[in-house]
Amino acid sequence: MELLARLVQQPSVSAQNMGFDKAPWLVKDALDLVGLNAEIVPVPNNGHPSVFGSISGASEHTLLFYTHYDVQPAEPLELWDSEPFEPSRRDGRIYGRGTSDDKGNIVARLAAIRAFNEVRGSLPCNLKFFVEGEEEIGSRNLRGLIETRGQEFKADACIWEGGGRNLSGDPFIYLGLKGVLTIGMSVKLLHGDAHSSYAPILPSASWRLLQALNVIKDPSDDRCLISGFYDDIRPATDAENAAVASLPDESLEWQETFGVESFIGGVGGEDLRRKLLFEPSANINGFESGYNGAGMKTVLPAEAKAKMDFRLVPDMRPEDIFKKLRAHLDRQGFEDIELEYLAGVNPARTPIDSPWVRLVAETAEEIYGRKPVIAPTMAGTGPMYEFADILGMPIATSGVDHPSHKIHAPNENITEEDFLYGAKHAALIMQRFGERGLEE
Amino acid sequence: MELLARLVQQPSVSAQNMGFDKAPWLVKDALDLVGLNAEIVPVPNNGHPSVFGSISGASEHTLLFYTHYDVQPAEPLELWDSEPFEPSRRDGRIYGRGTSDDKGNIVARLAAIRAFNEVRGSLPCNLKFFVEGEEEIGSRNLRGLIETRGQEFKADACIWEGGGRNLSGDPFIYLGLKGVLTIGMSVKLLHGDAHSSYAPILPSASWRLLQALNVIKDPSDDRCLISGFYDDIRPATDAENAAVASLPDESLEWQETFGVESFIGGVGGEDLRRKLLFEPSANINGFESGYNGAGMKTVLPAEAKAKMDFRLVPDMRPEDIFKKLRAHLDRQGFEDIELEYLAGVNPARTPIDSPWVRLVAETAEEIYGRKPVIAPTMAGTGPMYEFADILGMPIATSGVDHPSHKIHAPNENITEEDFLYGAKHAALIMQRFGERGLEE
Repeated sequence: MELLARLVQQPSVSAQNMGFDKAPWLVKDALDLVGLNAEIVPVPNNGHPSVFGSISGASEHTLLFYTHYDVQPAEPLELWDSEPFEPSRRDGRIYGRGTSDDKGNIVARLAAIRAFNEVRGSLPCNLKFFVEGEEEIGSRNLRGLIETRGQEFKADACIWEGGGRNLSGDPFIYLGLKGVLTIGMSVKLLHGDAHSSYAPILPSASWRLLQALNVIKDPSDDRCLISGFYDDIRPATDAENAAVASLPDESLEWQETFGVESFIGGVGGEDLRRKLLFEPSANINGFESGYNGAGMKTVLPAEAKAKMDFRLVPDMRPEDIFKKLRAHLDRQGFEDIELEYLAGVNPARTPIDSPWVRLVAETAEEIYGRKPVIAPTMAGTGPMYEFADILGMPIATSGVDHPSHKIHAPNENITEEDFLYGAKHAALIMQRFGERGLEE
Repeated sequence: MELLARLVQQPSVSAQNMGFDKAPWLVKDALDLVGLNAEIVPVPNNGHPSVFGSISGASEHTLLFYTHYDVQPAEPLELWDSEPFEPSRRDGRIYGRGTSDDKGNIVARLAAIRAFNEVRGSLPCNLKFFVEGEEEIGSRNLRGLIETRGQEFKADACIWEGGGRNLSGDPFIYLGLKGVLTIGMSVKLLHGDAHSSYAPILPSASWRLLQALNVIKDPSDDRCLISGFYDDIRPATDAENAAVASLPDESLEWQETFGVESFIGGVGGEDLRRKLLFEPSANINGFESGYNGAGMKTVLPAEAKAKMDFRLVPDMRPEDIFKKLRAHLDRQGFEDIELEYLAGVNPARTPIDSPWVRLVAETAEEIYGRKPVIAPTMAGTGPMYEFADILGMPIATSGVDHPSHKIHAPNENITEEDFLYGAKHAALIMQRFGERGLEE
């Protein structure tokens, strides 16, 4: 817990480039302390470096822990009850930015390693420990690193970040993340804004952009109209569908959080969860044109802009969707709409019937004393593809999370109980993986 | 010219509420000086007052001059070569905000009155002189004033502001202005913005608003789809069509100004001018939703907003179009889109075959030595309806304008030549109107 406090005390806010002169060294020291022979690994484009360590164990099986040491910005600061970078213990919880996401996971796993060192003098399996520095800003330089040095990080199986317990106290494991394509759209039709009295004869960038946006999605059923958009989707297996069916129903919670009476298409129950987890989406992040201040201004805007993100499921690819969108717009006569590729992340999902998933689930049940809830994927996005597909490892989660930890929000915290669960689960995974590897 | 300098020196920027402690008194004094028995007339809602004066003449015919003493903001100040409120004479022009629009018109007309006073000792007709204080902010309190005291301002015919010469040096007369309806649109579907990973299941305000906007206009032919939108349009007469056909072709100038290769529907020539002058429009002033800053933010916006203006031709009514839009959206299932009525101005147009138009045109030809160009209407909007329809007067323009005067822009100016033309034309109109009134 002292080490967690030391790590949390050191800011490492990737979005604000804060603390990276010291944070990677502190992480390297922490890894070295448990014998992980750590090095600071530069990433392309002068990004925030990763830290990588490895150590041999008693068996031939090699396990990779994926974590990250960067954190979300602490703002809004006024909503914190104690300083975000001065860890403080209150009511059985330690508060501070990164206490749970993801410095809590780093330290819980290091605690498991130290326990083996102290009790046995050795580890039950070979271990690799990868700590990324840019996860909270979209892991934008990770792909380049994996392509050049990835083989060094390869293992037989991987434990991701992000597991832990759900609201009901059941251990929660997920096996995949969606991909994402984010784009900018823009159109400029006039040298400058015109007086709106010219509206009968001058083309309008506002109308043009929204007409283009309108050919992207069918308002009647919310389906994306880009030709070929759904072509490459890998159908969910019966086991995956069954897993989603047995996930807890969070629809009432979502209704309350977002203030909606019903969801798109009026779906509920399993269908709602299947939609959320297995369907891609075409979402508008924002759009803007002309005058939006107080009162009126009779202007005919010269320019209009929008941003979109497309969440992708296996085996869709952001570059492919970007090309298909361009072709779709061109075919509909919208060659004048400019598209900018902002970022792309591939989706990834480990098969639910993998022996690795069984090992992680079985050990979770032993540690938590309750049957784990397994989600074939989360609705969000992360750099899992680099490890799951490029390096070819089965991936599952095990961690220190709990909904009350408020990760990414003010007053992020961790309970000692969740920290210990996470450490013990990591230890048992290492133990069992050392004994039987990926055998059934 | 001294009086013009004095009026221009006194700021009267209605949009910035600047100078109205003094400006109306200065205008009243100027009117009184030529015997107009002026009074400062309060307008509803504590708006900037009008100034009204009247005087009897030698005949029974009564003429109303409409002008306004408020001006546009002088900003951007750095683009002025001399101070906007310190009139300065350079290269045969007087520079300063309001020198042309509309203080130049006020003073040119007062000069015509003074000339009659000095040379004849009386005026050839009865005269009313109305000087508005809020024209540059949409004459928002004029309707109320006209409804309560309008009959006092009524005359047999009215000279509007805004005439003068065009780029070719021909006297330019227009007989109407479009109306306008300006509205706000908004929709809020969630308590707050959501993470975009919820896009498969949560409704999006961005999509919703743009889908609603998209049922307002047909992208294929740019026609407004609101049921009944075109119902009340008074068809242009043969004479009006002929007048538009003989207007100068400004399409090349517009192409250059706005940087467009072609106009909506690819029209040109007479058709282009007819479209501009005789067709209503449905224009987006602006729209806004979600995140529009640098880079990406994968947000699903809770709210979306837009502003629109509809330019209206006789005999459309803003209140009616607003109701039809509401009904149209409701019929299409967009009951959740909130509409806000921001402002409405009725269109007005004096028949081109009116004896009054002939009198103004004939006198223009005498003064300028060239046949006048007559536009049945302008594409812009102004409070002409209050005088033309509520008070029931034929209206035409005569004034000091020239495109080189840069009205509303930095370095607004007036040439002595245009000032004299405007004064002489006003004088001859009074003379001829005194002689024959509205007889053929």
